[in-house]
Amino acid sequence: MPDKVLDDISHRRYNPLNGSWLLVSPHRTKRPWQGQQEAPSKTKLPSYDPKCYLCPGNQRAQGDSNPQYQNAFAFVNDYSAVKEEQQEYKPEIKEDDVASLLLQAQPATGRCYVLTFSSKHDTTLADMSAKEILPVIQTWSRIYASHLSPSHPLKAEAAHVLETIPANADGEVDPPKKQLRYMQIFENKGAAMGCSNPHPHCQIWTTSTLPEEPGKEMAQMTKYKAEHGRHLLQDYAKLEAEKGERVVWQNDAFLVVCPWWAVWPFEVLVIAKRHVRALIDLTDDERLQFAEAIQEVTRRYDNLFETNFPYSSGLHQAPLDCTEEEAEASWFHMHFYPPLLRSATVRKFLVGYEMLGEPQRDITPEQAAARLRDCGGELYRKSLE
Amino acid sequence: MPDKVLDDISHRRYNPLNGSWLLVSPHRTKRPWQGQQEAPSKTKLPSYDPKCYLCPGNQRAQGDSNPQYQNAFAFVNDYSAVKEEQQEYKPEIKEDDVASLLLQAQPATGRCYVLTFSSKHDTTLADMSAKEILPVIQTWSRIYASHLSPSHPLKAEAAHVLETIPANADGEVDPPKKQLRYMQIFENKGAAMGCSNPHPHCQIWTTSTLPEEPGKEMAQMTKYKAEHGRHLLQDYAKLEAEKGERVVWQNDAFLVVCPWWAVWPFEVLVIAKRHVRALIDLTDDERLQFAEAIQEVTRRYDNLFETNFPYSSGLHQAPLDCTEEEAEASWFHMHFYPPLLRSATVRKFLVGYEMLGEPQRDITPEQAAARLRDCGGELYRKSLE
Ligand SMILES: [Zn+2]
Ligand SMILES: [Zn+2]
Repeated sequence: MPDKVLDDISHRRYNPLNGSWLLVSPHRTKRPWQGQQEAPSKTKLPSYDPKCYLCPGNQRAQGDSNPQYQNAFAFVNDYSAVKEEQQEYKPEIKEDDVASLLLQAQPATGRCYVLTFSSKHDTTLADMSAKEILPVIQTWSRIYASHLSPSHPLKAEAAHVLETIPANADGEVDPPKKQLRYMQIFENKGAAMGCSNPHPHCQIWTTSTLPEEPGKEMAQMTKYKAEHGRHLLQDYAKLEAEKGERVVWQNDAFLVVCPWWAVWPFEVLVIAKRHVRALIDLTDDERLQFAEAIQEVTRRYDNLFETNFPYSSGLHQAPLDCTEEEAEASWFHMHFYPPLLRSATVRKFLVGYEMLGEPQRDITPEQAAARLRDCGGELYRKSLE
Repeated sequence: MPDKVLDDISHRRYNPLNGSWLLVSPHRTKRPWQGQQEAPSKTKLPSYDPKCYLCPGNQRAQGDSNPQYQNAFAFVNDYSAVKEEQQEYKPEIKEDDVASLLLQAQPATGRCYVLTFSSKHDTTLADMSAKEILPVIQTWSRIYASHLSPSHPLKAEAAHVLETIPANADGEVDPPKKQLRYMQIFENKGAAMGCSNPHPHCQIWTTSTLPEEPGKEMAQMTKYKAEHGRHLLQDYAKLEAEKGERVVWQNDAFLVVCPWWAVWPFEVLVIAKRHVRALIDLTDDERLQFAEAIQEVTRRYDNLFETNFPYSSGLHQAPLDCTEEEAEASWFHMHFYPPLLRSATVRKFLVGYEMLGEPQRDITPEQAAARLRDCGGELYRKSLE
């Protein structure tokens, strides 16, 4: 079996989802460490922090106050990376003009939301049960549905979601007047990831343009479908379920793997097993199964080094405004990119060769998956209380 | 002038060198900061540290001792990311077999060196004069020349370098028997970049494969040349020199700019003004001018926030083993990727949306260039001594 050799030799692996290579150096895990260590996060947080701009009832930077919300509460980010209204920008494009070729820009508009996961300041997804995570997924689904283009191939699914999932009792956000192209839902957790607030929350950036990463994935998935007649992630989920060595956990609807091409030490990919194009394709039962998958990943992460595990995570799915072909090429999945490497205090940096050459990892995804499979027990914090 | 609008509106800019887009949010620089701050690096280092594995005379991890070297001393990294000898890996590739498509790997061999910049533990490039940096560039040039393929289009230039630049008196490294494809010279500086040793040094990774980043750049530069008959970086350097607003500094041979598509707040690109394909194309005088450019960048960086400025930097040039066409498409340049944003203690993280969506920056490259133009005086530390 030639694959076993890869446990010992330096090699490159290909990421078919975004079309790039990375370097794997499994022999290098014995290297000593003299550099920066992250401080273990021992601080016990209060369940309500009067200074937190996300806690219920508190005032935010621009003066608005949060309601006494229960779970998943969304509001427009006071410091959005994109604006809804701005001056026009229409550069004059001249054929073969050097400035038109090398100084290309395009306007980007949109709206950014913040969405809390819980009213409790000290709660994380790892602390919550699948049933407690469900309202988050329901809110994601309703926000996605309400922002979908009226001519979208999934408009019937969107209508169904808005009819059958009860409106968020804490209030909902209306979509902007101008139709936007993509909705990026992501969570950034922990000081190691530069996150400024421990209150559990995610961000939702909706933009007039399709961002690079989902754009590259869409192109790769479309090409694969055209060449092989099957979906890339359909084939991949089936193959990984058969191989087993990179599987962390699964239920009927979702497969959790450390992907073959993982860049981050304990990177995880959650893949829908059937052709789910977007959140609004999920059935009631699948939404609960998705909550279960998120619970399993985040609890295992915290158990791995017995710490509040930092990560960035996010959903990739069909654009808000897209063609029939783009919707068909989309395959719902969630990425988790965590920086920790060997303990709560040793992190990986994507620097040096990784910036100038290509990403590089030491432990193999197979070793990472084995460790995550082995730490599925009760959340380590429960027995400390 | 439509470009002025970009100071105020959110927009995307295109990086023609690697073919990707990033999001620019200039209106967002007023955002408050509650997150992690980097500790200012006030510690005064000794000029010799008996525990440093890079200081002259000291013993390294695997038992070898450093000679009493003077300047640029190179040795094989004891924990190389690639190995020279390893088991063979020849996966069976089956047409339209899912595993062959989705679990692609290729063996990677090579050799990694460490190269000191100075025998003094507490010296950085910013502290050194251009004349003191010159031996580093000479050593880079000789190592590159000695590792070049015997059939390389630049073999005459390599021979000339090995004849005319005196051999490093502290000893030289012999190339491995097997011809390698690419040599990535890079520096990783500062604890914020995960660098484990403050002793000034760079790394040189030579690999049997062309890494992603120079590979993408090569593809983009080749395409531009074919379409427009001129070199991408030739056109770009000329255009930026005319525009001026992103120029930090220049001499006859090199232009230093904050590129139009910069991802990092104070990212800098050093571009050869004439068609230099690799280090060995540089004349004696151009090598000194390159040293001068490096000195200008690193001193300005340290002056900007009056701190020992962290960064990753690296050279991109012709592969060690390449075709006539690849050598012709190559255009010598150096990237500087520094993480600091607003002060010695506030850094940018490439996380969240930047991992899931696309890179995003707040201050514009034009604003960054203006600040770097303005801090070219004497190194701030000199007047503190
Ligand atoms: Zn994705
Ligand atoms: Zn480059």
